[in-house]
Amino acid sequence: MNKILIIGAGLCGSLLALRMAQRGYEITLVEKRPDLRKVTQDAGRSINLALSDRGLRGLRLAGVEEEAKKLCIPMHGRMIHDKAGNTFLSPYSGRKDEYINSISRPGLNMLLLDEAEKMPNVNIIFNHACEEVDLENASAIFKDFNSKKEIKIEADVIFGTDGAGSAVRKSMFESHKFLFSFLQQWLSHGYKELEIPAAENNGYRTYKNALHIWPRGEDMLIALPNLDGSFTVTLFLPYENSDYCFANLTTPEMVHEYFNKEFPDVVEMIPNLAEEFFGNPTGPLGTVKCSPWNSFGKVLLMGDAAHAIVPFYGQGMNASFEDVVVFDEILEKYTSEENINWNNLFKEYEALRKKDTDAIADLAVDNFHEMKEHTAMEIFQRKRKLETAFEAEFPDEYYSKYSLVTFKESITYSEALKRGRAQDKAILNLLDDGKIKDEMSLKEKLELVKKETEAILHDDEVAGNLK
Amino acid sequence: MNKILIIGAGLCGSLLALRMAQRGYEITLVEKRPDLRKVTQDAGRSINLALSDRGLRGLRLAGVEEEAKKLCIPMHGRMIHDKAGNTFLSPYSGRKDEYINSISRPGLNMLLLDEAEKMPNVNIIFNHACEEVDLENASAIFKDFNSKKEIKIEADVIFGTDGAGSAVRKSMFESHKFLFSFLQQWLSHGYKELEIPAAENNGYRTYKNALHIWPRGEDMLIALPNLDGSFTVTLFLPYENSDYCFANLTTPEMVHEYFNKEFPDVVEMIPNLAEEFFGNPTGPLGTVKCSPWNSFGKVLLMGDAAHAIVPFYGQGMNASFEDVVVFDEILEKYTSEENINWNNLFKEYEALRKKDTDAIADLAVDNFHEMKEHTAMEIFQRKRKLETAFEAEFPDEYYSKYSLVTFKESITYSEALKRGRAQDKAILNLLDDGKIKDEMSLKEKLELVKKETEAILHDDEVAGNLK
Repeated sequence: MNKILIIGAGLCGSLLALRMAQRGYEITLVEKRPDLRKVTQDAGRSINLALSDRGLRGLRLAGVEEEAKKLCIPMHGRMIHDKAGNTFLSPYSGRKDEYINSISRPGLNMLLLDEAEKMPNVNIIFNHACEEVDLENASAIFKDFNSKKEIKIEADVIFGTDGAGSAVRKSMFESHKFLFSFLQQWLSHGYKELEIPAAENNGYRTYKNALHIWPRGEDMLIALPNLDGSFTVTLFLPYENSDYCFANLTTPEMVHEYFNKEFPDVVEMIPNLAEEFFGNPTGPLGTVKCSPWNSFGKVLLMGDAAHAIVPFYGQGMNASFEDVVVFDEILEKYTSEENINWNNLFKEYEALRKKDTDAIADLAVDNFHEMKEHTAMEIFQRKRKLETAFEAEFPDEYYSKYSLVTFKESITYSEALKRGRAQDKAILNLLDDGKIKDEMSLKEKLELVKKETEAILHDDEVAGNLK
Repeated sequence: MNKILIIGAGLCGSLLALRMAQRGYEITLVEKRPDLRKVTQDAGRSINLALSDRGLRGLRLAGVEEEAKKLCIPMHGRMIHDKAGNTFLSPYSGRKDEYINSISRPGLNMLLLDEAEKMPNVNIIFNHACEEVDLENASAIFKDFNSKKEIKIEADVIFGTDGAGSAVRKSMFESHKFLFSFLQQWLSHGYKELEIPAAENNGYRTYKNALHIWPRGEDMLIALPNLDGSFTVTLFLPYENSDYCFANLTTPEMVHEYFNKEFPDVVEMIPNLAEEFFGNPTGPLGTVKCSPWNSFGKVLLMGDAAHAIVPFYGQGMNASFEDVVVFDEILEKYTSEENINWNNLFKEYEALRKKDTDAIADLAVDNFHEMKEHTAMEIFQRKRKLETAFEAEFPDEYYSKYSLVTFKESITYSEALKRGRAQDKAILNLLDDGKIKDEMSLKEKLELVKKETEAILHDDEVAGNLK
C-alpha cells in the first residue's frame, strides 16, 4: 500500500488522514504547530466556525458526524441588530430543518486528531514546519522546532493541507518547471476577534441560536455562540480611508467612541472592549486560487492550501471537507487498479473540483457586500421575505442562493452560483419593475420568478458564446 | 526638480522617459538588455504588434506620432482563411477611417530611445539588471552584465516599467510590509512565432493590409505584415491534451502533418517550416494583475509590469501607452503644487486606471476564444455583418465592442467592456430569438439593438446590488 505524507494537521488534513487511513494507507501527518490538545489556545484567532451540510457530509464519510454534532450550536438565521438596538431574525431557510451550526475550531480539530490517532496506520508528528518540498520525488524537508534539526520525509504521494499560507504551494509557485497560475486577493477590510463573555451560569447575553449581525454599510460586526455561553465576535473594518478604520482606531477612547456610535447594544456585553481590541491581532481577509493543484502526480494541494476564501459564506471549512468527499469518490474509482495512476487521479479531481472552489470563493466575496450592505436594504429585505415564503410553502420547488450553497449539497457550488445569481437577478428586477404584485398568489409569484430565472439563464447561455 | 529613475526601457519605459523629460525631470532610464539599436534581434520574440488609437494618442502626447506612422502598415480587417484556403475579409469597422496598424516592436522602441536620448536630461544605461528595489527609500540595486559589479541608484521616485516579469513588482510581492494582491494566470495555450518571408522585390505573399487569421477551434494561426514584405506568423496551440499540441509536435514529420492538415495554404509560404518551428522558442500566454501599484509613494508600476495581458485584443502596447497619457493628465494637475505629493498622485492614478487595465485584460481573454472559435461560427458572422452595416450606415450611432475598445479612445476600457458585452448579448439573443427580421429596415434593427442593450444594462445594474 502507498505511503502517504500529509502536510498540515488542521481540519482538512486531519479529516483526510482519518479517511485515507480507513482506506488502509500508511499515513504520516505532520503539523507545524504544537499538538493543540496539549497547549492553551491563542486568543483572537477564529475560534468558532459555521458547519453546514457539505461539511457534515465529509464528517459522515469518516464516521465522526455524530460526535461532531455534540459540539454544535444550531443557528437558524441571521439576527440583524440596528443602531437603535432593535433586532429581527432573518431565517436562513423557509424549511424548518435547514440551519447552520456554530462549532469550535479547536474542538473539532481535536476530535479529528483523536480519531486519526486511534488508527494504527497513522503517525502524527507535531512541531515540524515544512521548509521545502521536492515536487518530483515526493519528499519534504521539515524543521523540528524543538531540536532545531532538519528531517526529510519520503513518501509515494504528498498532500499539502497546510492552509492559506501553504508552504507546499509556495514550492509549486517557485518551481520553474511548470506554469503555475496563482491569485492572492486581499479585501480592503481586516478583521478583529472579540469576546462577549458568558452570563451567569453559562447563560447567553443575547439570543443563542442565531448568527448575529450588525450591518453598517462599510463595517460589520458578527457574533457566533459558543457552548460555554460566550459569543465570539468578529469586527470587519476597513484598514484605512474611512471615518473609523484600523488605521485610526488607535486609542481606547476612539474604540469606545466608535462602538458607542455604531454598536451601542454590544458595548454593554463586552466588559473589556478596549483591552481585547488592542490585545488581539488584526487579521487580513484574502482569497487564494491556484492551478494546477498537483505537480508531477506526486503532490496535491487540498483545502485552504488550494483555495482559501473569505469567511462571509461560512463555507471555508465546509468546502475543505467537501474536497475530501469529492477526492474520496474519485479515489474509490481508481482503487480497482493494481497501481493507482495518481497523476490521472489528481488531474481528474482538479477538473471536477476547481470550478466549484472558484465559485465558492466568488460567492464569499459577494456575500461580504451582501452582509454589510444589503441585509439593511429595503429591496433586499423584500426579496428575502419572498424567498423565505417560497421555501416554506413550496419546500421542494424553491431554494434561494443561500440555501443552494449551504443546504443542497447534491448540487455543486458552481451550479449554485449560476442558478442562485440568476434567481437573485430575476427577483430584484421583478421587484424593481413592480411586476410582483400584492394581489398575486404566492404560487403565481413563484411561477413568475421561475420563468424569469430561466429566461436569464437562457440569455446568458446564448451570449456565453462570447465569454 | 525631482530625480526620476525608470527601470525598463521597453516601449512603455521609453515613452514615459521621453514625456517626463519633456516636463523637465532628471531621468535615469535603466535597461537590462543591450541597446537594441546596436545588436541583432532575437528571432521569434513578438517582432510586430498592433498599434491603434489609444497607443497613437500616447505617441502624439510626446510628439512622435508622425515618425511612428512611417513604420506602420494599416490593417483594415481580419482576413479569415478556411481549411480549403478560401479567404474573406471581416472589416474591423464599418467606418472607413478606422483601422489598426502593424508596427515593428524594435523599430518603434528604437524611435522612442532615439527621441529620449536627444533630451539633455535623460541618461540611458543598458546591460544593467535590476536585482532589488528599496521600496521605502526609492533606490535600486543593478547588476552590470559587463563588469559583473553591482551599483546602487538613488532617486526621488522610481517607475517600474520592466514588463510582465517585472523585478520591481517582485520586490513588492516579497515585501511583508503591506498586503499585495497578485494574479498570474496562464492560458492552456502557448505561442510560437514563424515567418512568411518576403516574395521577390519585397512583395507580399498574401494580402498585405489585413491581420490574417486561420481559426481552427482550439488552435489558431495569425499573421501580421512587416515593411520588408515578410509576415510574422504566430501559432497558438495547446501545450498538451490535444490531437496536435506542443507536447506531441516533436518531429518535422508531425509539424508538416499538422500544417498540411490545418493550414495547407500556409505551408507553401513558409519554406523552412520545421526549422523555424524547432528553432524558435515556445512562449507562454499570461495575464498579470496586481494592487497596489505603488509602494510608500516612492515606487510605481506601469505598463506590463502592472498589468500584463494576453495578445488577443492587440491592446498590450496600446494600454501601456495609454497609461502614460492618463498618468500625464494627473501629473499635470499636481504640478501646480510646490512639492508634489507622489503618494496621493500614485493613488489617484491607480483609482482611475486600474478598473480599465483589469477590463482590457478580461477582454483580451474573451477575444482569445472569439478569435479561435467564433470567427468561424455562423451566428457570429451574422452579428459581425450586422454591426459592420450599423457602423457604415450610422457611424455616429453605433460602435461595436471591438470599435469601442480599439478606436474610441474617448471612452475607457471598462466602459467599453460593459457596453460592448451588453451589445453582444443583445444582438446574439435577438438573432437567436429570430427577432431581427429580414423585412426590417437597418434603422429599425439598430433601434431594436439599442433598446435591448439598454434593457440589459438596466437589469444588470439592478442586480448589480448583489455583485
